[in-house]
Amino acid sequence: MNATGHDAVRAAVIPGPNRPVEVRTFPRPELEDGAVLLRNLYSEVCGTDLHLQEGRLAETPYPLIPGHANVGVIEELRGDVCDVAGNRLAAGQQVTFLDVHATCGACWFCLVAKATTRCPNRKVYGITYGADDGLMGGWSEYVHLRPGVRIIPLPEGLSPETVIGGGCGLPTALHAVERSDILLGETVLVQGTGPVGLSCVALARLRGAYKIIAIGAPQQRLDAAARMGADLCLDVENTSAEERRAAVLEATSGRGVDTAIEASGNPAAVPEGLDLVRDNGTYTIVGQYTDHGPIELNPHLDINKKHLDVRGVWGIDYSHFHRVLLLQERYNDLFHWERLITHRFGLEEANQALDAVRSGQAIKAVIEPWKR
Amino acid sequence: MNATGHDAVRAAVIPGPNRPVEVRTFPRPELEDGAVLLRNLYSEVCGTDLHLQEGRLAETPYPLIPGHANVGVIEELRGDVCDVAGNRLAAGQQVTFLDVHATCGACWFCLVAKATTRCPNRKVYGITYGADDGLMGGWSEYVHLRPGVRIIPLPEGLSPETVIGGGCGLPTALHAVERSDILLGETVLVQGTGPVGLSCVALARLRGAYKIIAIGAPQQRLDAAARMGADLCLDVENTSAEERRAAVLEATSGRGVDTAIEASGNPAAVPEGLDLVRDNGTYTIVGQYTDHGPIELNPHLDINKKHLDVRGVWGIDYSHFHRVLLLQERYNDLFHWERLITHRFGLEEANQALDAVRSGQAIKAVIEPWKR
Amino acid sequence: MNATGHDAVRAAVIPGPNRPVEVRTFPRPELEDGAVLLRNLYSEVCGTDLHLQEGRLAETPYPLIPGHANVGVIEELRGDVCDVAGNRLAAGQQVTFLDVHATCGACWFCLVAKATTRCPNRKVYGITYGADDGLMGGWSEYVHLRPGVRIIPLPEGLSPETVIGGGCGLPTALHAVERSDILLGETVLVQGTGPVGLSCVALARLRGAYKIIAIGAPQQRLDAAARMGADLCLDVENTSAEERRAAVLEATSGRGVDTAIEASGNPAAVPEGLDLVRDNGTYTIVGQYTDHGPIELNPHLDINKKHLDVRGVWGIDYSHFHRVLLLQERYNDLFHWERLITHRFGLEEANQALDAVRSGQAIKAVIEPWKR
Amino acid sequence: MNATGHDAVRAAVIPGPNRPVEVRTFPRPELEDGAVLLRNLYSEVCGTDLHLQEGRLAETPYPLIPGHANVGVIEELRGDVCDVAGNRLAAGQQVTFLDVHATCGACWFCLVAKATTRCPNRKVYGITYGADDGLMGGWSEYVHLRPGVRIIPLPEGLSPETVIGGGCGLPTALHAVERSDILLGETVLVQGTGPVGLSCVALARLRGAYKIIAIGAPQQRLDAAARMGADLCLDVENTSAEERRAAVLEATSGRGVDTAIEASGNPAAVPEGLDLVRDNGTYTIVGQYTDHGPIELNPHLDINKKHLDVRGVWGIDYSHFHRVLLLQERYNDLFHWERLITHRFGLEEANQALDAVRSGQAIKAVIEPWKR
Repeated sequence: MNATGHDAVRAAVIPGPNRPVEVRTFPRPELEDGAVLLRNLYSEVCGTDLHLQEGRLAETPYPLIPGHANVGVIEELRGDVCDVAGNRLAAGQQVTFLDVHATCGACWFCLVAKATTRCPNRKVYGITYGADDGLMGGWSEYVHLRPGVRIIPLPEGLSPETVIGGGCGLPTALHAVERSDILLGETVLVQGTGPVGLSCVALARLRGAYKIIAIGAPQQRLDAAARMGADLCLDVENTSAEERRAAVLEATSGRGVDTAIEASGNPAAVPEGLDLVRDNGTYTIVGQYTDHGPIELNPHLDINKKHLDVRGVWGIDYSHFHRVLLLQERYNDLFHWERLITHRFGLEEANQALDAVRSGQAIKAVIEPWKR
Repeated sequence: MNATGHDAVRAAVIPGPNRPVEVRTFPRPELEDGAVLLRNLYSEVCGTDLHLQEGRLAETPYPLIPGHANVGVIEELRGDVCDVAGNRLAAGQQVTFLDVHATCGACWFCLVAKATTRCPNRKVYGITYGADDGLMGGWSEYVHLRPGVRIIPLPEGLSPETVIGGGCGLPTALHAVERSDILLGETVLVQGTGPVGLSCVALARLRGAYKIIAIGAPQQRLDAAARMGADLCLDVENTSAEERRAAVLEATSGRGVDTAIEASGNPAAVPEGLDLVRDNGTYTIVGQYTDHGPIELNPHLDINKKHLDVRGVWGIDYSHFHRVLLLQERYNDLFHWERLITHRFGLEEANQALDAVRSGQAIKAVIEPWKR
Repeated sequence: MNATGHDAVRAAVIPGPNRPVEVRTFPRPELEDGAVLLRNLYSEVCGTDLHLQEGRLAETPYPLIPGHANVGVIEELRGDVCDVAGNRLAAGQQVTFLDVHATCGACWFCLVAKATTRCPNRKVYGITYGADDGLMGGWSEYVHLRPGVRIIPLPEGLSPETVIGGGCGLPTALHAVERSDILLGETVLVQGTGPVGLSCVALARLRGAYKIIAIGAPQQRLDAAARMGADLCLDVENTSAEERRAAVLEATSGRGVDTAIEASGNPAAVPEGLDLVRDNGTYTIVGQYTDHGPIELNPHLDINKKHLDVRGVWGIDYSHFHRVLLLQERYNDLFHWERLITHRFGLEEANQALDAVRSGQAIKAVIEPWKR
Repeated sequence: MNATGHDAVRAAVIPGPNRPVEVRTFPRPELEDGAVLLRNLYSEVCGTDLHLQEGRLAETPYPLIPGHANVGVIEELRGDVCDVAGNRLAAGQQVTFLDVHATCGACWFCLVAKATTRCPNRKVYGITYGADDGLMGGWSEYVHLRPGVRIIPLPEGLSPETVIGGGCGLPTALHAVERSDILLGETVLVQGTGPVGLSCVALARLRGAYKIIAIGAPQQRLDAAARMGADLCLDVENTSAEERRAAVLEATSGRGVDTAIEASGNPAAVPEGLDLVRDNGTYTIVGQYTDHGPIELNPHLDINKKHLDVRGVWGIDYSHFHRVLLLQERYNDLFHWERLITHRFGLEEANQALDAVRSGQAIKAVIEPWKR
């Protein structure tokens, strides 16, 4: 599996569940017609990468090159490759690409339910492709973009750092915020101040929320939430649920927030969040990406009597990804997503990168595959 | 409190929590301007009446005359009283009226959230009005309809029996079915075959569902579900959850239903229902009208990964009530709501009426206040 | 272009604008992997076929084999061909297929706007494919279904006649009715009693409309509208606009209908329809499929002051097509779409078929390619 | 009708159609229980006031005190008067109030259609109340706020100038922008750069639009549009329709905008706007508040084939008004609505005020009733 010499490509690999990441070399891929070879500049270290390394996701095709959010430069193309507007891509362009690939457009979910994020045929770079499939993850010097992968050139003035600073959390947040149907002037609670939560705060502001409340930790992330637009930041580690409840009710004339978005990953956030939404409000669950077990809730008090809308949000589609770049181009001066990057690691430092995310020390850590 | 003689009105009263219903007499009310005196023909016996008698609802103003769904004849009016179309009502008309009254139109919920079913000022005949407020419940020979109570004359050809057969369950079902956003050709599961569930079956058919599955008991109610339009009826008492799951998956190509509506009142139905909805489907909770304690659910598996919509439904507003009569006028030949009435009781038999509902013996029991 | 002998396939061809249809023979196609050869039983004669023959559609690729709604039997397959549920198709099955083909899933309209009916790459059997592309229209003994064409086996108990009786008008009507957001108990006006209008009447009933009003002609079609569920049928040829207005207002307490659907193809229907919708209602335009010139309307009175929603409906996608078969399977006993077929023609009689539709003599005419 | 002495109140009155405004005196009103006397600080001069003075609105109750958007100080109250949150108002508070009053909550439009802006019973300060009804318009030293008028205290830090700078145009724009369903990252065209159009620009930005294009005049208003957030400003007086079309298509990859909002009042804007929206986009009409005659449009090309949504917007309700103050409190530092005020007039200068608006010289003119 390892390659050497001029064409050898270095990549960080999770060999199996609970095993440390190691750097391996791979042959430079032969491009098929319509494919692109990406010289990767940045790859994100996401909570999902922790779960992959910890063996928490079913059917992971180990060995695996992680890295599903990436920004790089087109090194080589084979044949005509176009973006969604029909413009031909060219070597040397800075681009990003949607990790979700091969949504089939032919199954019941794609065609009848129009729920493409539930298409059973979709493949995901860095998650459902393994290293045996090729350079299909971003913790690698090069990434092999197969025909049909959706590639977007970075708009003029938008830096790779800003794009990776948004990472996969920003389109996920966009999906969640759109599902939340926030009205102009409403009050929004965001539970969780990781990358998804922080982008939810930013986008709630960009939807014209009146007041934004964030619950999270540690202080570094709460400070980031305040910069993103949160008016009230509650430290989940230094407050009791009762104190948070009192603070939210005080900020909302005793009614609770119009909309809450769960982006914490902690199952216990769900009953707390349901309680903090006002009657006839909306509760969006976007943080429960792995199974951390069951919770208790009261269907009479928490949902039926409250006349609540509870909405799960799974994955993103191309539309979310596409519009994120437009938003970053236009509004990054309000949010500065690149400032979320607190840690940068080379391929050899991938285990430290995972540690920095696991410990909560990093807001966002990135892999720079060419860093030595 | 008791009255005698020519003007004495007989009504059935719950004196207090867990006390048997007793018949008392009241003076015939003096009508204020804009009020109507209804000679009541039928009043429903609803699950809520059981809860009132069992003391399960907070802040019940005992002693209380139950009966929130009613059909009667206008005995007397004071001043001009109009229906919503501006037509003047007249003595002798058969009418029904919306139990919910005095929605304020002035509070934050009415005006900003436009969530009138959460207005804190609304009053409900037979539930939040007590006997000390007057003849404000339907288990009574006469009901005092205060100014502003929304009264609808029965359309020509629509019998009082059909209207009380729909009762309060039908507008509740209409609210739930509208919240469920059923598309033409979708498959719908209804959990519960009481009056709300049976009307959900009917209305799912009236929205053009492809296939309707009902889970309930006993056989008498399942037979009614089949008559209302259910294609597959599963007896909750004679099947295991596993068997029901297998049957639902078989009926849906292994995906689960597009939409499920919980109308059972049993908290355990909620996790079962969440599991039986397909990814990206909708789950509507309308049966959890009293607190029967918490349930366990898994926010990752049951909501987030499924990309589910879960919607609570509390109460109805006038629009639901109004359109129910139109639907009954037009479509009763398909559904025959009057056939849901299995038991009829006089005021003196009110305790038997409650027993018939408590035991599940009755599909629908009604009180006929003039029956001797 | 013509073929003879054992493998020759007969098809009716429009040679060019305003030229009579003629029967030509073609070689039996070689199937590529994933393709299907359909032995065609029925093909519809649609208003669009008139427009194609009259040269009214831009960029028509003459010579052309018309026929975009079809039902037939699988004669031959090459390789594995599956339906949307993943079930393998087999020779001998009765099937129908979606005329729209090759929606790209890669352009801005498909991916960002999610407006697949506006995808510029889609091709349509019998309309945008010409005879030089092969047997890509339904007025032919055989139709060549290319890989990726969406094919649906007829459900058990659903006859080819019922399916072709619904034809292309029924999924178009389904799209229009879904865009109309009809609430349970609303009153709906359908303008036009051709195949689209008649199916709009049926589906309005299947959405639980209270009252359905149809405007159309001639009497034969109005009778069909009444059978489909219209409560009030107004003959557009024997009534003045004033008389229709009076009738609609009388039927709606003077307010106008909640929703009107234009399915007439006559531009003059648009201002009339806008006027007949109540304030804050919905007006859906699905009949204006060719350019018949401009109309006058008053944006203050007709739209702004009325707080109206006006919705154009172009084409259908697979979801509409798929659910139509489910609806026909379940509800055909209420509507009997096969009874819309009033005329049947062989390939040699194709010009008479067009005449029967042009004159309004036929409700629905079908081509039976094997009829001699 | 005129009063003198200590209690005389001065107000500007339109005596009849096409007659100059004149100052008259009125007696200070006696307050009924629940009423408030407002010492008025600012009243807006709106395009509707021109139409009132020009006799263009049907059933105007002359003589009339204009002025429907107002900010003042509570001079006196009678009894308990509360805001929508239930907080008691007090003399000395700075407040604004919703001009729309007496929405009945009892008619078919209020209760069944839930279309309160079409309630036939609603009354409007400065428009449908005449001077004979009392001090029911804002071009007056005092305004008589009857029981049930919705009054909002200005939040701390929000100045009367900012509130009147938003005026009636801002809640109208909020209603239009909400009806437009702008997605994050979409491109929006606003036609018209009067107060409604400028606030539409601001709110499109507050909904996270990617690009905002404004068409209007004169230069002063285009400059204001740019300050509010427009990326591209097109002068309707110095460009041809062809030039504007070319500019819009260039800015949108040739597709047209996702959403356009008509806020110009010019009927000719409607066909132009329909043409500038992309297929499957949304066109909202909020500027056609008076009848300026018919336009021509092509229902095939402009609506049906484009699969367009066209939405009329009439009036506002309390929810729009309420949330406007929240938005101004939170986001005025981005928009500075007070800077829209270019002209200030006393009561005696009311005719000059109308001239300043009629000529387009003013972006926004206000009346200061106490200015001498």
